[in-house]
Amino acid sequence: MINPGVMAEITVLGAGMMGSALCIPLADAGHAVRLVGTHLDEDIVQSLKHASHHPKLDLPLPSSIRAYSLGELSDAMQNAKLIVLGVSSAGVRWAARQIAPFVRADVPILMVSKGLEWNGESFRTLPDVLCDELPSSVRSQAFPVAIAGPCIAGELARRVETCVVFTGRNPALTALCASFFAVPYYHIWSSEDVVGVEASAALKNAYAMGIAFALGLHEKRKGGPIADSAPAPGSIALHNYEAAVFAQAVYEMQRIVSLAGGNAASAAGLAGVGDLDVTCSGGRTGRFGRWLGLGLGVSEAVRRMHGATLECLDILRVVRSALADLQARAALGASELPLLRHMAAVALDDAPVDMPFSEFFGGRRERQA
Amino acid sequence: MINPGVMAEITVLGAGMMGSALCIPLADAGHAVRLVGTHLDEDIVQSLKHASHHPKLDLPLPSSIRAYSLGELSDAMQNAKLIVLGVSSAGVRWAARQIAPFVRADVPILMVSKGLEWNGESFRTLPDVLCDELPSSVRSQAFPVAIAGPCIAGELARRVETCVVFTGRNPALTALCASFFAVPYYHIWSSEDVVGVEASAALKNAYAMGIAFALGLHEKRKGGPIADSAPAPGSIALHNYEAAVFAQAVYEMQRIVSLAGGNAASAAGLAGVGDLDVTCSGGRTGRFGRWLGLGLGVSEAVRRMHGATLECLDILRVVRSALADLQARAALGASELPLLRHMAAVALDDAPVDMPFSEFFGGRRERQA
Repeated sequence: MINPGVMAEITVLGAGMMGSALCIPLADAGHAVRLVGTHLDEDIVQSLKHASHHPKLDLPLPSSIRAYSLGELSDAMQNAKLIVLGVSSAGVRWAARQIAPFVRADVPILMVSKGLEWNGESFRTLPDVLCDELPSSVRSQAFPVAIAGPCIAGELARRVETCVVFTGRNPALTALCASFFAVPYYHIWSSEDVVGVEASAALKNAYAMGIAFALGLHEKRKGGPIADSAPAPGSIALHNYEAAVFAQAVYEMQRIVSLAGGNAASAAGLAGVGDLDVTCSGGRTGRFGRWLGLGLGVSEAVRRMHGATLECLDILRVVRSALADLQARAALGASELPLLRHMAAVALDDAPVDMPFSEFFGGRRERQA
Repeated sequence: MINPGVMAEITVLGAGMMGSALCIPLADAGHAVRLVGTHLDEDIVQSLKHASHHPKLDLPLPSSIRAYSLGELSDAMQNAKLIVLGVSSAGVRWAARQIAPFVRADVPILMVSKGLEWNGESFRTLPDVLCDELPSSVRSQAFPVAIAGPCIAGELARRVETCVVFTGRNPALTALCASFFAVPYYHIWSSEDVVGVEASAALKNAYAMGIAFALGLHEKRKGGPIADSAPAPGSIALHNYEAAVFAQAVYEMQRIVSLAGGNAASAAGLAGVGDLDVTCSGGRTGRFGRWLGLGLGVSEAVRRMHGATLECLDILRVVRSALADLQARAALGASELPLLRHMAAVALDDAPVDMPFSEFFGGRRERQA
C-alpha cells in the first residue's frame, strides 16, 4: 500500500460492475465517492438512490458512495481530486467528452477500460485515445492511468484480495492515483509500460476465448475421445489441450507486446498471465468460446450472448488488421501467432475449431517451448 | 511430428498411470511395447495379462502392449530400441539400477519422473541423478531425455491432444526419442535447457498447491467476504486471489530457473505455465492445497491423502534448503520468493495461510508486475 491519503472527493463515471466495484476500496479508504451513471446505468442509479442497492453487483453500497444521474455530472465533478472512468472500451471517447469541461492537469484520471486500437502504423492504447478527446489545453499534461490485472468486479466489491497494475506515463500521477486506494485487500503495482500492460489486458480476452474452445469440444465429444479414434470408456476433460493453448497464449501475448513496443515481461505478469487466468475462470468470454468449440457457429454463439459486449471479437479484429500491416512490412513472419490467426478464423470467419498445435511455439524449428 | 520411425521394440519400466499412458502413442505409432511393472505394480500387470485392462487408467490397452512382471525384466529388455522409465521421482535411483545391465549408448532413455535435488552447491535434475547410477562404461554417453509439459495421463491414454517438451543434453538423442511417437495427438517440442525445463516441471507442484489455498479459504469463508469485514450477501469465489498467486508463481518460477542456471523462458512455456495450469485443474496437489487453505493443518491434510505421493512437499523441502544456501552466498535476496517461502511455512511448518500479497512482484519498489 502507498501512503493513505486524506479524505478526498472522488468522481466515478460509469456505474456498471467495475466502476461501482472500485468505489468500495475508495469508500473504505475514507473518501467521499460520487458514482455517476451513464445513460445506460439509469436503473442502477435509481436503485442506488432509493435503496442503496447495486442490482448488478447484488450488494448494498456504503453510504459514503452517492449516486448521480448523468444530468447531475456537473455537480458530481465539483472539487473532485480523482476522476475514475468506469466505462467500456467503446465508451472511452464518449466519456472523455463528458469529463472534458472538468479536467485539470493536477487531477489524475484513472480508467478501467481495456482495449487496443491500430492506426495503420502502431497500436494505440485507450489512455492515448482518451487524451485525443481532451481539450488541447490539458492534453499534454494529462497522463491517464489505466488499471490492468486479474480483477472480477463482484469479488473486489466483496473485498476479496485483489492484485492489480496501475499503468501510466507519469509515475508521480500513477502513484497519486494509487494513494487513494489505501485498503488492505487491494494491492497495486505501478508500471510505466503502458503499451505492454494495456496490450496484455486487451489480448487476454481473445486468448481466454480460445482456451475455452476446449470446454465446447469436450461437450461435443460427449466426454469421450477425439472423433476418429476408437471409443474409450470414462469421461475425461481436455485439460491437456486447454493447458497447451494457455501456454501458447502466453507465448503469443509476449510476442505481440514486443511487436507493439512494450515489455514482454508485462505479458508474463499480472496484466497478462494473471488476467488470462482469471478470465478463464468463467464469465462471458469463456461462455462464448465454449459455444464456438461446440461448433454452434459465430452467429448462433453471438445470438446466445443476448447482446453482451464481446471484447474478444473487437480485439481480434484490431490485431488481425495490425498483423496484416506488420507482415506487409516484414516485421512479422507469416507462420507466427498461429493461435491468434486460428481464433480469428473461427470467431470472425466461422472456420471450424481445429487447433494448429504443431505450429505452436515457433513450430518444430524452435527449441524453447 | 518428427519422421515416423519403423516398428521397434520399446520397453517401459513402471506400469503406473503415466508410464502406461505413454504406451498408447507408442503402440499407435506401430511399435511393440513391453510394459514392465515395478514391485508396486503387480496387480496392474496381472490385470493386463489376464484381461488387457489397466485398472488405474480404467481402459483396455491395445494388444501390441504386452505386460511383464518385474521378474521378467530381462526378457522384456531384449532388443529394446528405446527404454522408458515410468517411475516416480523417488524411484529413479532404483529404476536406474534395474536397467543398468541393459543400457547401451545407442539406446536412448526417456523418463517421465519430475523432481529436483540440491547438493549444497547446485540443483541436480533427475536425468543427472539417473546418470549417476548407470555403469561408468555408459555414463558419459548416456544423455537421458525427460518429458515435461501439461499431460494428465488419463487424457493422453484417451488420445486427447497433448503438447509436451522433451529435454536432453544431446539433441540427436532427444530427436530420436521423439521420433518413436509419430501420432497426430502427441505434439513434442525439444529443448536443451534441461535445468530450466526440469526445474519448472518440479516447481509447478509446489505452486499449484499454493494456488489451491484459495479454494480452501473460499470454503472456510463459506463463500462470504474475508473474515474481518462486514458480511456481504451472495457467494463469490476467490478467483482474484487465485489469479494473483498464479501470476506470482510464474514470476517466481522464472527467478528460480534463472538461479538454477536455466533459461527463464522455459518457466514461461509449456513446462512451466502450461504444466502449472493443468495441475491447477485438479488432482491430488490441488486437493492437498485446498485442505491447507481450509486450515486443517499439515498432519490432517496429509492423513486425508491416504498415502498418496506429495511431490509438492518434496520440492518445497529441496528448494527451501537451496534458498538458505543461495542466500548465505548472497545470490538471493532475503525478500525474494515470498510465495515460495510462505508455501513452505504453511506446508512444512504448519503456519496459517496468510498470503504475503504486498511482497509479490518484488514488493513496492519493483515496476514490472
